[in-house]
Amino acid sequence: MRGHRVIPQQVIANKRDGGALTPGQMRGLLNAYLDGTVGDDQMAAFLMAVYFNGLGVEELDVMVDVMLRSGDVLDRGMTEGPRVDKHSTGGVGDKVSIVLAPLAAELGMIVPMMSGRSLGHTGGTLDKLESIPGLRTRIPVDRFNRVLASVGCAMIGQTDEIAPLDRRLYALRDVTATVPSLPLITASIMSKKLAEGLDGLVLDVKVGRGAFLTRIAESRELARAMVDVGARRGLAVTAVLSAMDRPLGRTVGNALEVREAVECLSGGGPGDLRELSVELVAEMGLSGKVFNSPDEGRRRAEQALDGGGALERFLRMVAAQGGSLDLSRTGFGLPRAPLTRAVAARRDGIVSGINPRALGYGVIPMGGGRTRQDQDVDPRVGFELQVRTGDAVSAGDVLAVIHGAEDDDLVIGTRVVADAVTVAEAVESDPLPLVIERAAAD
Amino acid sequence: MRGHRVIPQQVIANKRDGGALTPGQMRGLLNAYLDGTVGDDQMAAFLMAVYFNGLGVEELDVMVDVMLRSGDVLDRGMTEGPRVDKHSTGGVGDKVSIVLAPLAAELGMIVPMMSGRSLGHTGGTLDKLESIPGLRTRIPVDRFNRVLASVGCAMIGQTDEIAPLDRRLYALRDVTATVPSLPLITASIMSKKLAEGLDGLVLDVKVGRGAFLTRIAESRELARAMVDVGARRGLAVTAVLSAMDRPLGRTVGNALEVREAVECLSGGGPGDLRELSVELVAEMGLSGKVFNSPDEGRRRAEQALDGGGALERFLRMVAAQGGSLDLSRTGFGLPRAPLTRAVAARRDGIVSGINPRALGYGVIPMGGGRTRQDQDVDPRVGFELQVRTGDAVSAGDVLAVIHGAEDDDLVIGTRVVADAVTVAEAVESDPLPLVIERAAAD
Repeated sequence: MRGHRVIPQQVIANKRDGGALTPGQMRGLLNAYLDGTVGDDQMAAFLMAVYFNGLGVEELDVMVDVMLRSGDVLDRGMTEGPRVDKHSTGGVGDKVSIVLAPLAAELGMIVPMMSGRSLGHTGGTLDKLESIPGLRTRIPVDRFNRVLASVGCAMIGQTDEIAPLDRRLYALRDVTATVPSLPLITASIMSKKLAEGLDGLVLDVKVGRGAFLTRIAESRELARAMVDVGARRGLAVTAVLSAMDRPLGRTVGNALEVREAVECLSGGGPGDLRELSVELVAEMGLSGKVFNSPDEGRRRAEQALDGGGALERFLRMVAAQGGSLDLSRTGFGLPRAPLTRAVAARRDGIVSGINPRALGYGVIPMGGGRTRQDQDVDPRVGFELQVRTGDAVSAGDVLAVIHGAEDDDLVIGTRVVADAVTVAEAVESDPLPLVIERAAAD
Repeated sequence: MRGHRVIPQQVIANKRDGGALTPGQMRGLLNAYLDGTVGDDQMAAFLMAVYFNGLGVEELDVMVDVMLRSGDVLDRGMTEGPRVDKHSTGGVGDKVSIVLAPLAAELGMIVPMMSGRSLGHTGGTLDKLESIPGLRTRIPVDRFNRVLASVGCAMIGQTDEIAPLDRRLYALRDVTATVPSLPLITASIMSKKLAEGLDGLVLDVKVGRGAFLTRIAESRELARAMVDVGARRGLAVTAVLSAMDRPLGRTVGNALEVREAVECLSGGGPGDLRELSVELVAEMGLSGKVFNSPDEGRRRAEQALDGGGALERFLRMVAAQGGSLDLSRTGFGLPRAPLTRAVAARRDGIVSGINPRALGYGVIPMGGGRTRQDQDVDPRVGFELQVRTGDAVSAGDVLAVIHGAEDDDLVIGTRVVADAVTVAEAVESDPLPLVIERAAAD
């Protein structure tokens, strides 16, 4: 299905002028880019025109289709049971995936999870997982399938075979300032997720000052677009809008976040991490027809967390991917920063806000994040919050503990905490509900 | 002056979001494109962002500066007197340049005119001139300067040394649907004209259905931008908005238009061609301080046309550029099409409109125009109108004569005339005044 031959300038001009491209034009342009007759220059101009004028439902659907078919689509292999995945638009302190994959597997789902790396202020599941000694996230598809068949879940990075057109377009968008476009984001996420051969997908669309999309209206629009694309392609997509006006959980930083995820998988950990994990796995189970009601899903999820099943499943996955943890040791055998410093409140008052973006950007100069995809991260550094928004504190109370590799990190970290965690007479604004709303196909 | 180092993505994002770039950002981006560190992909995205969000006065000024300095700037050489040029935004039947260059030279100005080729429905002065046997428009700068010094005017194409960045950007705009952007058009024209080392410039901004810009408001905006850029760079620019809701003069087609220009230079020719030529040369003389008033300019221009001085100057220029004409012969020794056909009115009525765009596009399939810059044109083909809008005609009266190289041209041409020249009860709409308004720096 190579589609029609098109005159690229005319297709670009059409989008520039706000017109709707025919499926033949859309497919023709993208196929011409794939076969090299349309270059990065024309595609860059097209992407910028899309940034301004968007894509209609039909255009988006064709774009997803061409991206999806540009590479392999995973098959079920030897796995049985509903294949379900979760994708998050990215936040700070968001270690839900690490809880969710084994939890869903424990509840009877197959979770072929492909995650990304941290970029900018948002963390990335791959970087977090790789803080587990020995664990590999870059494994061949056949081994990925074996792990899936034996454990029920596996967590890897995007392989070269999945949606290669998405990788080319993303690299181009990255240098041409066309990343933040809702339809292009939708096409990128959905083409990859559809290539996983899923039965159900839950999207965690973060909202708030720590999210990529800060306003509910935009987040809702993205959620709607993803649900619609899924519906057109026979994939049950449920989108959950969740709060990212504050960090999720208490830790920010790769190894620190894995530790917290393990605590959650052990039936402990912070309440918001547990609540969101339970909520999302209930949605996953509904979309995969594993549960009859959300309540059944929540109840069974809590049992799996409290009964040890989810943790055991996680450890089996870690082992299958070459990693090792030792739960009998403090810190579970995860790498630990050599230096820590507690940052105290300088006045009495109320914790009026905790700015996730400030913390997310704060780990970058400490080596825990990156501004370019090719940079390495130090898994050890980060922040451990000791307070939540609304807590009453006295001068001298610890607000957060900094984990640093060098003295400089502590200096930087102290400034970051002072900036991110504010103490005042009252909270800045009412926090968003943790789960704001959900959207699914009718 | 290499300017600051910039992060191209950030500069593109800034323009995308409607921000104003600092001079350092603008200069840095363009210099990085010149030295190859910014590629066509990033520049294409930037140009599309400019298409949507425009350029401020300061940004445009810096862009013009970098484009201008990317190549040579002509010096006065051995010439004396004010250097003045005219540029038109392009129309149908517009042979004014061929009248204007020798006319202005005859009135004491130095006219180093660099023109373009036809593209789409608009004609190009270079193509018209090259219908003169032997005439060369691609000559080295030193010879150009010698012609200028001896004749006072010379007419050539853009040389490789003039504003090479403009040529690169234009080629990129051509394939990325970013040609029709007022600031980019302004930068392109002004960088080339400023490189001619002028004292004054008159812009003929065409308005109407045969022009690139069909509405007065847009034409006025373009005129204003050009005047402003000139003012910031010490060049007196006067913009004249003139009518292109109908063809200028009676002929459309390269050799036919030269013949008409020669008639005008001989004191004859159609009234609108003479009037616009006189008006524009008066403006050129004012901007070059050759005349004290528009009226003085108009009077002296009419004397030069009627007294033979302008024609003699034209013939000297033609000879200096290797061409030859024989005014004693019918058609002046210009190439003539082997076939002609008169197209007659099929009913009594009023000539209700003559569509310049239809005629301009009409010569392309007859071989007289081009859709790509690398195509050749047949100088002989075209249309000779026998009527003007508002003329009363009877069935059988000749509306236009087609000049064709092959039988097919006459078939095509007949359809074109039938489409372009309409006969009805009354005129479609009041024609625009030939000279609509003028704009100049305060």
